[in-house]
Amino acid sequence: MKAARLHGYHERPSVDEVPEPKVTDPFDVLVRVGAAGLCRTDLHIYEGQWEHLTHPELPFTLGHENAGWVEELGSAVSHIAVGDTVILHPHITCGLCRNCRAGDDMHCVNSKFPGVDGTDGGMADYLLTSARSVVKLDPTLQPADVAALADAGLTAYHAVKNAVPLLYPGTTALVIGAGGLGHIGVQALKALTPSTIIVLDRNQAALDLVSGYGADHTVLADASSAEKILELTDGQGAEVVFDFVAEQGAEALGWNLTRRAGSHFIIGYGGTVNVPAIDIISSERSIVGNLVGSYNDLAELMVLAAQGKVDLHTRTYPLDAVNDAIDDLDAGRLQGRGILVPG
Amino acid sequence: MKAARLHGYHERPSVDEVPEPKVTDPFDVLVRVGAAGLCRTDLHIYEGQWEHLTHPELPFTLGHENAGWVEELGSAVSHIAVGDTVILHPHITCGLCRNCRAGDDMHCVNSKFPGVDGTDGGMADYLLTSARSVVKLDPTLQPADVAALADAGLTAYHAVKNAVPLLYPGTTALVIGAGGLGHIGVQALKALTPSTIIVLDRNQAALDLVSGYGADHTVLADASSAEKILELTDGQGAEVVFDFVAEQGAEALGWNLTRRAGSHFIIGYGGTVNVPAIDIISSERSIVGNLVGSYNDLAELMVLAAQGKVDLHTRTYPLDAVNDAIDDLDAGRLQGRGILVPG
Amino acid sequence: MKAARLHGYHERPSVDEVPEPKVTDPFDVLVRVGAAGLCRTDLHIYEGQWEHLTHPELPFTLGHENAGWVEELGSAVSHIAVGDTVILHPHITCGLCRNCRAGDDMHCVNSKFPGVDGTDGGMADYLLTSARSVVKLDPTLQPADVAALADAGLTAYHAVKNAVPLLYPGTTALVIGAGGLGHIGVQALKALTPSTIIVLDRNQAALDLVSGYGADHTVLADASSAEKILELTDGQGAEVVFDFVAEQGAEALGWNLTRRAGSHFIIGYGGTVNVPAIDIISSERSIVGNLVGSYNDLAELMVLAAQGKVDLHTRTYPLDAVNDAIDDLDAGRLQGRGILVPG
Amino acid sequence: MKAARLHGYHERPSVDEVPEPKVTDPFDVLVRVGAAGLCRTDLHIYEGQWEHLTHPELPFTLGHENAGWVEELGSAVSHIAVGDTVILHPHITCGLCRNCRAGDDMHCVNSKFPGVDGTDGGMADYLLTSARSVVKLDPTLQPADVAALADAGLTAYHAVKNAVPLLYPGTTALVIGAGGLGHIGVQALKALTPSTIIVLDRNQAALDLVSGYGADHTVLADASSAEKILELTDGQGAEVVFDFVAEQGAEALGWNLTRRAGSHFIIGYGGTVNVPAIDIISSERSIVGNLVGSYNDLAELMVLAAQGKVDLHTRTYPLDAVNDAIDDLDAGRLQGRGILVPG
Repeated sequence: MKAARLHGYHERPSVDEVPEPKVTDPFDVLVRVGAAGLCRTDLHIYEGQWEHLTHPELPFTLGHENAGWVEELGSAVSHIAVGDTVILHPHITCGLCRNCRAGDDMHCVNSKFPGVDGTDGGMADYLLTSARSVVKLDPTLQPADVAALADAGLTAYHAVKNAVPLLYPGTTALVIGAGGLGHIGVQALKALTPSTIIVLDRNQAALDLVSGYGADHTVLADASSAEKILELTDGQGAEVVFDFVAEQGAEALGWNLTRRAGSHFIIGYGGTVNVPAIDIISSERSIVGNLVGSYNDLAELMVLAAQGKVDLHTRTYPLDAVNDAIDDLDAGRLQGRGILVPG
Repeated sequence: MKAARLHGYHERPSVDEVPEPKVTDPFDVLVRVGAAGLCRTDLHIYEGQWEHLTHPELPFTLGHENAGWVEELGSAVSHIAVGDTVILHPHITCGLCRNCRAGDDMHCVNSKFPGVDGTDGGMADYLLTSARSVVKLDPTLQPADVAALADAGLTAYHAVKNAVPLLYPGTTALVIGAGGLGHIGVQALKALTPSTIIVLDRNQAALDLVSGYGADHTVLADASSAEKILELTDGQGAEVVFDFVAEQGAEALGWNLTRRAGSHFIIGYGGTVNVPAIDIISSERSIVGNLVGSYNDLAELMVLAAQGKVDLHTRTYPLDAVNDAIDDLDAGRLQGRGILVPG
Repeated sequence: MKAARLHGYHERPSVDEVPEPKVTDPFDVLVRVGAAGLCRTDLHIYEGQWEHLTHPELPFTLGHENAGWVEELGSAVSHIAVGDTVILHPHITCGLCRNCRAGDDMHCVNSKFPGVDGTDGGMADYLLTSARSVVKLDPTLQPADVAALADAGLTAYHAVKNAVPLLYPGTTALVIGAGGLGHIGVQALKALTPSTIIVLDRNQAALDLVSGYGADHTVLADASSAEKILELTDGQGAEVVFDFVAEQGAEALGWNLTRRAGSHFIIGYGGTVNVPAIDIISSERSIVGNLVGSYNDLAELMVLAAQGKVDLHTRTYPLDAVNDAIDDLDAGRLQGRGILVPG
Repeated sequence: MKAARLHGYHERPSVDEVPEPKVTDPFDVLVRVGAAGLCRTDLHIYEGQWEHLTHPELPFTLGHENAGWVEELGSAVSHIAVGDTVILHPHITCGLCRNCRAGDDMHCVNSKFPGVDGTDGGMADYLLTSARSVVKLDPTLQPADVAALADAGLTAYHAVKNAVPLLYPGTTALVIGAGGLGHIGVQALKALTPSTIIVLDRNQAALDLVSGYGADHTVLADASSAEKILELTDGQGAEVVFDFVAEQGAEALGWNLTRRAGSHFIIGYGGTVNVPAIDIISSERSIVGNLVGSYNDLAELMVLAAQGKVDLHTRTYPLDAVNDAIDDLDAGRLQGRGILVPG
């Protein structure tokens, strides 16, 4: 089969002919890939930024946002059937540690991260995964329409779900960044909360997109954005700030626009949170880390997708054109998420 | 009556003869002061550190940790009676804003802070306060034994109570700082949670004190403390770190000793939290502000005090000796909390 | 002024000329009534069903769902101004007991219930209330449009808000009863949750109404309703059943349609919950009482009303026609809520 | 090996010689049984009361409260090692359904219940279970000391843990029934909450036992018990009633002694909850089902056991004497829990 594999850092992945993976373990699931999302993380892997975190053995197949159809099942798998449309949670988890037992899949102490940590990912004709990673989809959903929700969408949904108890009628949610995660975040906020949604971005086209998805106010990032957002919030800021950027000044702006007793949710990264302790305690604000999401979070997001409450902007490429897609993403020519389709 | 009043910054307060306050408003409560705690905040006020925050008009009476007996009541007050032993919540709140209505007294939008913001405090024979600030005490409790719980103790209790859902059997709470707040925090942790309690301090006498109050492990602060604490926590750190110091390196140490998916509670201040966003999200940790506590928190703490579950180390001074007490506190000669007793 | 007053049980109220109430207490608020909702509870009061609960001294003015404009303020009230449009929380609470301090207004240990417990209510030109009962409205809202939300709407909203943590994507909320409370409940569910909403009622017109308010499925009550609802829920029932009826069999049906680990919310009354303990524990279901709602709940509901997310069907009558309104309500001729308008 | 097996209802189990179970599945775990608790449920099984619920195929080996040492592991099990001391969660769960993924093991849609549903239980030399059921124990714990915590203790712990958010300082927990579950409940309440604990039982010896475990007040069941408990709770009842009996009048008494806005936790069974809806809503009380507990709950309880915070009264019998143990239990001669020890 074909697979887009990374052979070295700062070298483009090549589409190689490799053997199909085989079902051997009773909990194995072989998936015929229908779509694999291309993500900025793939650029970071290629650039070597993840090397020191996961030390992957090269080469390996990229692709950590995957959906497709069940091709073959291990002997112990009975909750899904051959032919089912499925999306895959980005991690393969053990199911036995305390965190897995509590539903905190992202804190599994024995997990694998296909497409990132050296385990083969989904930019290929077939992907071998585990029964614990497979979410069965409503048959109306197509892999190419939902694949990019597997990681980016899941991360946005998880953060919004964490914030639900804080966002009652009359509160404001400030979304910083209307890109791949932010535009899902806005839709999840609309579906799950009655809060007023303000979105800040430096790109007007991105703001126009989220206006159609339920943003109540959009603010183009410039020198006066903070002032405009304070005007929209009685001078107090938002109860919850979803910081999908968290670099280049967003991390300071996000904190400053967090209301007394409010929460600054960190979802993006790149910058550094730098806040005097006196500011934290005198206003009793919190800074809250958010990391991808659980299997059940992904299943819930798929319900929203099947109900038409969450929609993704995508552009598809054949798997062979993986490097065209990477070029477009790198050069900023890609509106919405790039989706690789094998076959 | 006598009152310890601040006439100028960097000048010692003087004990003046002033008129007794009078009940005029229907919700006024006149309290005969039994004890007023002396707190490091009083030093900071005297040094002018609060001037830019609260702009108090000078002179005013110090004392924000007050307990005593009800002397006279406004016409509308019926939930307490003359002669009742009472402790006073440090703020006077409006009872009408959303935050008051939700029990978040510390976020009242119209509050006063006697002894700090220019409103006369409790280092005096009598103190005028509001019905909303008065917590009736079990008659077995004496003002001098509990006054210092009104602010310092309340702050420690509130932080512990916030952490209760995080501290199930098998978890560890790390307490940084075994001083005025920390030694109450340890007792509250013992009363409210089954967690293992580790206490870090640079003072062996303080550590010995908290060992008697239920600390499971104490660690003297030195170059190897982080390593020792990691050894006690399987190399992972604590689920909740209560940072009662948050300066001079404690704020960085506290974060580093917070376990994956855990929380770093900021209670002290002086330092700056400085953490890369990637560290926040990749471990999904949170940094949580804590500010004093609510009226109901104080009432709950008084239940623990009456049940003998929370105890304070104190040294009493006559009100006239306020500057001796300040000298002792400033020079580090004061073990436990200094308590001023009028009369 | 005119006031609709109850002089005896099983006697119709009469519209009497009585003196205007006067502001005397510093927290008094005099409201010029704009609208007073008529509620089935008013019929029950007239029939004497509340006599043994509240022992009201007769005569008194009816009306416990009131909105209008501030006419005069007590000396201590500063959070509202003369001329403000306001809606009134149905209880007058003390603000000093633990429950008030925790935001649980309905459990105030010293509350009054105007229009029900012998305290004069709002079916009059003017109503005297307390600063603690007054919710300031967005000026776009008219008293006649929102008055009936003060009690009926608040009760429905409070129940829905309690259920928010239980109603994630993929869950089902079953609403039993699409009347005065139920049709607000459906709108609140739509605004606050992503759950699928099924509504059961014996009246097709009521079902048609809630279809327009966001019900996903409606089921006309007949012998096969349980079966139909089970079909819509994979044979399992709903995660939360909102039982706005709780009599005449609804209370048994509601329990039977509550899913394993789910909750049967009791909001209506009249019937008796009768369930073997083995059924409760073997399925780990709960039966949850719901009682009106808090001041903050009402303020949140008014935000939804101002945002157009909650709408009421009403029919207005002049205050003089109070007995026509009662006749219409009693005879089932009143679609939507009856609203009395003084003037 | 030897195994105590049920061949027919109303026939005593016989101790048979049967083949040892074999590890075949990759997640199988073979446990050398160290102790199997005898429980009233075993009597109910023998009497046929579970027949219609689980339709077990006869014969099968009894024993659903099991602890021992790992003898052999399936190929995929790496979180435990041969020789480890372990206790077994009473259910074998799938790990793949939404409930398992959320940590709600008791609501697994594909679970087995060894010793109850026809799957062989632990009254034998060896027991075959799954990796998901095995909790590794602190080596200081002995199987015979903890086995009976696997089901009875877990049930009591789970109920207490659910109640933690309701039991702040100043609240009262009423425990009805100081038997096998109740005496663990009292210890768990002491470890996890600061509430005042009142225990009601008809047996003075049982009350004496729980006094030593932290009960603050004990009340012998007689005609005046309700009155005595009301006296201990300001005439209001308890914030949480743990009803470990829920039959023979306890279920009505428990409700009546539940305070306004409080919760009646049903844990025992046999009786019927019968409450007018008006009583539920006018006091906003809840009736809460409780069913055994999760894997993580059991792991937490084992932490408490290892810390010496939870202790069990037991009497051991050799496995061959199973029918002596049953006779003693049936005749009320067994103080504490009966424990069968193979070998």
